[in-house]
This record gives sequence, C-alpha cells and structure tokens, in this order.
Amino acid sequence: MSIIKDANLAASGRQKIEWVKSFMPTLTTIGQDHIKNQTFAGLKIGMSIHLEAKTAYLALILKEAGAKVYATGCNPLSTQDDVAAGLASLGVEVYAIHGVLEEEYRDHLNQVLNNKPDLIIDDGGDLLEAYLNLPDSQKWPLIGGCEETTTGVLRLKQLAKSNRLPFPMMNVNDARCKHLFDNRYGTGQSVLDAILHTTNVLVAGKTVVVAGYGWCGRGIAMRAHGMGARVIVTEVDPVKAIEANLDGFEVMQM
Amino acid sequence: MSIIKDANLAASGRQKIEWVKSFMPTLTTIGQDHIKNQTFAGLKIGMSIHLEAKTAYLALILKEAGAKVYATGCNPLSTQDDVAAGLASLGVEVYAIHGVLEEEYRDHLNQVLNNKPDLIIDDGGDLLEAYLNLPDSQKWPLIGGCEETTTGVLRLKQLAKSNRLPFPMMNVNDARCKHLFDNRYGTGQSVLDAILHTTNVLVAGKTVVVAGYGWCGRGIAMRAHGMGARVIVTEVDPVKAIEANLDGFEVMQM
Amino acid sequence: MSIIKDANLAASGRQKIEWVKSFMPTLTTIGQDHIKNQTFAGLKIGMSIHLEAKTAYLALILKEAGAKVYATGCNPLSTQDDVAAGLASLGVEVYAIHGVLEEEYRDHLNQVLNNKPDLIIDDGGDLLEAYLNLPDSQKWPLIGGCEETTTGVLRLKQLAKSNRLPFPMMNVNDARCKHLFDNRYGTGQSVLDAILHTTNVLVAGKTVVVAGYGWCGRGIAMRAHGMGARVIVTEVDPVKAIEANLDGFEVMQM
Amino acid sequence: MSIIKDANLAASGRQKIEWVKSFMPTLTTIGQDHIKNQTFAGLKIGMSIHLEAKTAYLALILKEAGAKVYATGCNPLSTQDDVAAGLASLGVEVYAIHGVLEEEYRDHLNQVLNNKPDLIIDDGGDLLEAYLNLPDSQKWPLIGGCEETTTGVLRLKQLAKSNRLPFPMMNVNDARCKHLFDNRYGTGQSVLDAILHTTNVLVAGKTVVVAGYGWCGRGIAMRAHGMGARVIVTEVDPVKAIEANLDGFEVMQM
Repeated sequence: MSIIKDANLAASGRQKIEWVKSFMPTLTTIGQDHIKNQTFAGLKIGMSIHLEAKTAYLALILKEAGAKVYATGCNPLSTQDDVAAGLASLGVEVYAIHGVLEEEYRDHLNQVLNNKPDLIIDDGGDLLEAYLNLPDSQKWPLIGGCEETTTGVLRLKQLAKSNRLPFPMMNVNDARCKHLFDNRYGTGQSVLDAILHTTNVLVAGKTVVVAGYGWCGRGIAMRAHGMGARVIVTEVDPVKAIEANLDGFEVMQM
Repeated sequence: MSIIKDANLAASGRQKIEWVKSFMPTLTTIGQDHIKNQTFAGLKIGMSIHLEAKTAYLALILKEAGAKVYATGCNPLSTQDDVAAGLASLGVEVYAIHGVLEEEYRDHLNQVLNNKPDLIIDDGGDLLEAYLNLPDSQKWPLIGGCEETTTGVLRLKQLAKSNRLPFPMMNVNDARCKHLFDNRYGTGQSVLDAILHTTNVLVAGKTVVVAGYGWCGRGIAMRAHGMGARVIVTEVDPVKAIEANLDGFEVMQM
Repeated sequence: MSIIKDANLAASGRQKIEWVKSFMPTLTTIGQDHIKNQTFAGLKIGMSIHLEAKTAYLALILKEAGAKVYATGCNPLSTQDDVAAGLASLGVEVYAIHGVLEEEYRDHLNQVLNNKPDLIIDDGGDLLEAYLNLPDSQKWPLIGGCEETTTGVLRLKQLAKSNRLPFPMMNVNDARCKHLFDNRYGTGQSVLDAILHTTNVLVAGKTVVVAGYGWCGRGIAMRAHGMGARVIVTEVDPVKAIEANLDGFEVMQM
Repeated sequence: MSIIKDANLAASGRQKIEWVKSFMPTLTTIGQDHIKNQTFAGLKIGMSIHLEAKTAYLALILKEAGAKVYATGCNPLSTQDDVAAGLASLGVEVYAIHGVLEEEYRDHLNQVLNNKPDLIIDDGGDLLEAYLNLPDSQKWPLIGGCEETTTGVLRLKQLAKSNRLPFPMMNVNDARCKHLFDNRYGTGQSVLDAILHTTNVLVAGKTVVVAGYGWCGRGIAMRAHGMGARVIVTEVDPVKAIEANLDGFEVMQM
C-alpha cells in the first residue's frame, strides 16, 4: 500500500512523467532492451531518490523490465506529491510525502526496506544507512546497489575502509556523464536559474563572482557570462586559475 | 480610499519595493533632484502600469517629489497584490487587484480618472482611452502624459493623425534605452527564463530557432546561445540575415 | 600602356584574383547580369582603389560588362605588384607600383584621368581631387562616380556644401552592408589579426582596452573577447556605454 | 665557434629576445632563483629546440644560471637566423641555420653532442637519437634531460620499454600547463591564425568543421566560434561528442 499525500494528484503526476520521457532518449533506448529481456524479472528494487518526474520514469522502466519497485524520496523537500501519486497509480509502491519531518521520513525509508529489496538505488546514502541500522536478525542477503552523489560515495568509502560495507555498491557519481555534464551544464544552468528567480534581476552587466573553477564553478561561470555578466573567478589551484584566466575571465583573490 | 486585495500584504510589498531600489540607481539619482525641487508639487498624477515593485518605486518617487499619485494596473494579471498593498500603505492611492475581470478593471481605470489627474503615465493606452470615453462634460484640461509601449504609441499615432489626441503624450517607447536595452537584454533574458520555467529542460545542446533578428530576436539568440543552445535564425530582411550569419548563427528559411 | 613593377608577376596575380572569386558570390551574381546586358558598353571607367585581388576582380567584372577600365591604387603601400601585373595581363590598363612616392603616385592618378573616364570609382577622394586640380580647359563632362570611405565622403560633402562638386558621386560608405559588416566584422577580425602578427602573443588571458563602442569598436571587442581576452571598453556616449556593459564588457573611463 | 647564417642579424635577434621577456614572467621569476643560486654552475646543457625568441630566452636563463649552453634547432624550417645570431652574440654556442637539409641538420645535432653535454633539452627526440647513434666508445655519462612533445615522449616510451633509454628523461609534454594550455589555447589561436594568413578570408559566417574534440580540437572550436564561425564538431568518443554538443556546437559524423 503506497503512502502518498493525495491520490487525486495522480493525473498531473502522470502528465509530468509523460512529458520528461521525450527528453530522456538514452534511458528509453537502454530501457527497451531490458524490458524485452525482462532483465529484472523476480527482483525487488528499493529506491531512495529525489522523487520527481525523471526519477519516476526510471522507476517505471525498472518495473516494466520485470522488477517489483518500492520508492521513497531522499529528501522530503524535493518530493513532488503529484508525481508520487502518479507513480503509485502506475504500479510502483511509493512511500513519500512532501515536507514530512525526520521521523516520518525515516519511517518511509523503513517501509521500503520492509519489502526486503534485492537491489537498492540510493541518493545520499540514507537507505543504506537505514539497512545498516537494522538488527542483524532482520537483515537479508541484499545483492547490491548504486549510489549517485558525492556525499553518498564518501560515506560508502568510509564503510568500505572499515569493512562495514555489506554488499557491492556501484559509484554512479564518478561516471564521466555524471560529473562532466550534470555538474557542469546542469548545475551551471540551474544555479543561474535559481538566482534569476530569487532576485528577478537582469544578469547582463552585473558582476558575478564564482568561487572555485571546478566542474560546477566553470559551468556557472560559462552560463553567467552567457547571460551577459562580467565574471570574476577565485581559485586556489594555480593551474585552474590560469585556465579560468585563459577562458577570458578575471581571476582574483577572494 | 485605495481598492486592494488585502492590506495585510503591505509588509511583503514594501520589502519588494525596498529591494528593487538598490537596482534602480538611475531613477534614484534623477529622483533626488525632483524631490529636492518638489518638481511635482500641487500636481496630480494618474498611473496605469504593470503594478509591481519597480513601477511602485517610480510612483513613490513622484509622490516624494510633491505629486498626489493615483495608480492602477494596466493588466490585472501582472498586478501584484502585496506590492499594491505596500504602495497604498506608503501614501499612494491604489486601485488594483490581481486577476479581476474586464468590468472591474475598467472601473479601476475610472477610479484613477475620478481624481482628475493633471498628468498620466500610461502603458498600453487604456487610461487615455478611458479618458477619451468620458462625456465631454466630465473632461478637464489634462496637461499631458507619457506612453511606454509600442502598442500604446501606435494607438497615439492613430489619434494624432485623426486629430483626436487631446493633449501632448511623450513617446517613451522609442527612447534608445527602452528599445535598445529593454527589448534586447530584458526580453532576451526573460524569454529564456520563461521557457526554462515552463519546460524545466537543459538549454545546452538544444536547437533554438529564433524568428526574426530584430532587437528582441537578437537578444533571445544571444542568450539562448549563451546558455549553450545551437541557434538558428530566420529573417526576411537580407541585411539582418547576413548580420545574424556573421554573428555566428545559422540562418535558414522558416 | 600599363605602368607596373614587373609583368612576370602576372601569373601569381591572376592566381590571387582567381582565388577570391569563390569568396565573392554577390559580385559574381550581380556581375553576370551586367555582363549579359553589357551595361557599361562604350563607357570608360577610372578606378583609384586599394589594388589587391578583390578590387581587381571588380575591375575585371566591369571590363567584361563592356567598359574600358583604367586603374591605379589609392595608396602606394597597399598596391600589390603581382595583382597589378595580373590585372594588366587581363586587359585592364593599370598604372600602379607598390611603394612609389607622392609625385609618382600623383602621376599615376593623372595617367588614369588622361583617358578621360566617364565614370570614376574613388577610395579616399584622391582621384576626384586630381580631376578638380586640372585646368578647366582640360576637363571633360564626367557622368559621375562613387566613393567608398568615410574620409572621401567627408571631402565630398565639403565640396557639395561649397557647390564645388562637379558631378554626382554615390556614397557607398553609408550602405548598410558597408558600415555594418565591413566596419564591424571586417575591422574586428583584421585589427586582431594585425595585432597577432605584430606581437605574436597569446590573446587569451590578456586585457584588451577598446576605445569607443561604435561599429569598429564593437567588432574589435567582440573578436578580442572571442579570442579569450578580457575586454574593457571606454565610451563617451552613455547609451553606447551601457550597451557595452550589457554585452558583458567592463566599461571604464579612459 | 657558433655556426649561424649571418652574425650581422644579431641586433634584430636580440631585440626579439628582449621583447618576449616581458611576456614570460614565469620563466623570469623561476630563473631569478637559479641565477642567484647558480644552479647549473659547471654543467653543460645541450638543446635541440625550435630556435626562436622564447626558447632563446630559456637558453639565456640557463646560461646565466651557470651552465655552458649549446643550442641547435629541432627543425631547420623553424630556425630564425636573426635569433640564432642574437643568441650566439649573447654567449650561447649556436649551430643552426634556417632551411638547411637533412645532412647539415644532423651535423648541427652532432656539433652539440661534441661538447659532451651533461643535460639535454630535446623537442621531438632527434638529439637523443643522435646520442644513441654514437659508437659506445664516443658516449659519456649523460645525467639526463627533458622532452617536450608527444612524438618525442612516444619515442622515449618505446626506448624505455626495450630498456634502451640510457638515462632519465623528464616528460614535459604531460605537464598540466603544457597539454591544457599550450594545446588548447595556444593551438586554438595559432591554427586560426595560420588559416587567416593562408586564406585571408573573413571567418565570421563561415562553417568550420573540427575533427576531434580533444584539447587541440576544443581550442580550435572555441576560437573559430569566437571569430564568428559556425562550428561543427566530429568526434568518435561519445562522451566528448556530448560535451561538444553541450558546449553549443553541432556534432555530426565525419
């Protein structure tokens, strides 16, 4: 039984999921093979991810590829109630409500684990942590899973170092497509986007200071400049600093 | 007596007006002289403008420069109820509620005119039209006013041609700072901004087709390109088409 | 009889003229009509232009369109001896040698005039001036001509004002394609190009100061920025200054 | 005894070396320490490098830091005779003449080796190869050296693999500042620069196809785009292809 805010939001949620499909050709293509081969037939997958249209579409693909899917959010503030309802209406079991507090959030994670998933998809490491906190008597042989974020991967490396990582976890975060594109182009646009919305000011002619010229930093610098801002970069790594300078940005000490 | 949605929204409105001040140095500077000289002492000014923080700040400057100011929106959908409340709380008489229908909107325009303003600030021509629709018996000698948009200016030119323009109106729309900057940089950013918000897609790598390489068109092309899109321009004017091409855009027939 | 440096350079000159043809589709297209109609049949055309491949091609088109063409340079330092030889070998009468001094240059202009051209193509106004300096007894009814540069046009306007302009001259300089494209994109690239060659330094990371944000200035700013330089613009016109600022450049006082 | 084209060219060569100094602050700074400490006192250094102002300045710094320096070119076509003369006049022994053929070039390399250098600076591997070709009887214990180019480094790796590398060689080519900046920004500008000079055409509005989106490729794409060209990238690595696409370029199959 799914735990969601309001089943009546399902239509709006399904519409959002439908919409993102056309912008996710890679997942669609890869998905087709797995759906044809029923790759996940007989497997249970537990997910703890930012519950919005794109991840919901991933959950659906896994389900269509044969898995029983149980999903919760990885942050109550990012959970979209209509998407949660839409996903539930499409046969995925969902335990997620926008804005719930710590305790209820933890409960949702445990709801996922109660189904004893064979595989987990984690974003930040909360689901794995919830598993580790279970009394040994309640644990079961989990095949493995994957982790998306830097934070989560750092936690995994700590566990591995102290031999407390109970099963293999795939490090999605370090995939080239993730840190190259997500961090640079995705963050570049969304940070600017967020600033535009909080401030409602014209970027052109403004001076934007970007602290650090890593993947995120250069994405932000690139887009701020693209919107007509004068960009100043501060960077402690001398080589990255020269790079920023040769990319045409001013480089200064913070 | 102001006609607004909810006086309790005043604090939020005043905060927004406070915020925009720091981004409007030109108005602040020009305003200081007029406030010192009380340029508008004894005059009544009627405004029909998009009622948001920036125009509200203009209304305040006029008031501080000695005028009695009466304001309404020029489009019920752009009226911000908290700004309307904040402005009213600061001594400007406001008649504007977000989302009202035609009849009530017309009534708000007339509320402004009932104060027999000496000067009008119009955006689209509705306030002037309301004045023209008054029975001659109810008209009074209005000194003049100004009009901001292309639409409004076109209406003014029609009136002037048929000798029906009752008093001088200043054409703000054709000021270099208006059509050069508002149209190019302002529209350039806000159109992109709007698309980002309706679609929530990554612009980088997308192909954006811009129809027409006028001020707005080149602003949109410039910003779409700045966000990483591949930009194709369609343009009927051969010289503008070459210009788009030499700016590095592809030029195609629509 | 042509007056050139060395007829043996003709092959190299013809090769250069052949090369530019493919990059001058507009002239080729327009030329075809005039060649078909023999527009200039029976007319003599005197040219004083920067004698290099592109202008040589123009001279050839005019000849093929029926004219007798007499050409000299408009600046001995821009004359290319091989192009001059090539053009002469193709049936245009040429009087031009690279690097000649004032007196010889003036003599070449007079050589052109000795042919009593019906039309003149001037670049800077020297050919027209040479005509005006002729004793009236030696003058003939010239139909008219055209002038390409700002300098030349200014001289023409002076003459017109004092009623000393003896025949109509077409102002090519103010054609949109001339001042928009030649000045912005052409100068933008060639100025950078020239600096690269004089200095052989990496532009990326350098600070380039552009004095004035007119057509040439914005072309230089655009290209310097495109090569990775940090660009600072100085501009006395406040509106152009804002424009430079909103284009993402720093604006400072000189 | 230096072997150069013409000692009278020394003044021009020294002027070029003087000129580049101001653009090489890093070498100047690093150099000061070594000059103070006479780091290379008593050592002989043999160089085979593109003999132009910048490398000549390096040779001078080494000399001032205590070394006896013997220099030849690594490609007779890049040798600048005036710089060679200038360098010789400043106390470096030079064996290099522009445009000499294979045999004479080999002889110049051997002239360097005849001085039994303790250290070698190689660009392409010719100097090291010349050493390896010496009969063992004529070899001496060389401390080591450094190699600048990809080609040279590949040759070194072959030697190392077959245990034929006689002494340690430092791989300068893979230094971040070399492959990041030299390849991207340096090549980016100079390739464009070279095309401009061979063709003398306007880049703006042209379509430039860049094969491969590696460091050189993206530098060329970046600069061609900066000059107003429409850039199409072909790339076999799918991730680099997406990168080019998200950078705003069209990506096509070759």
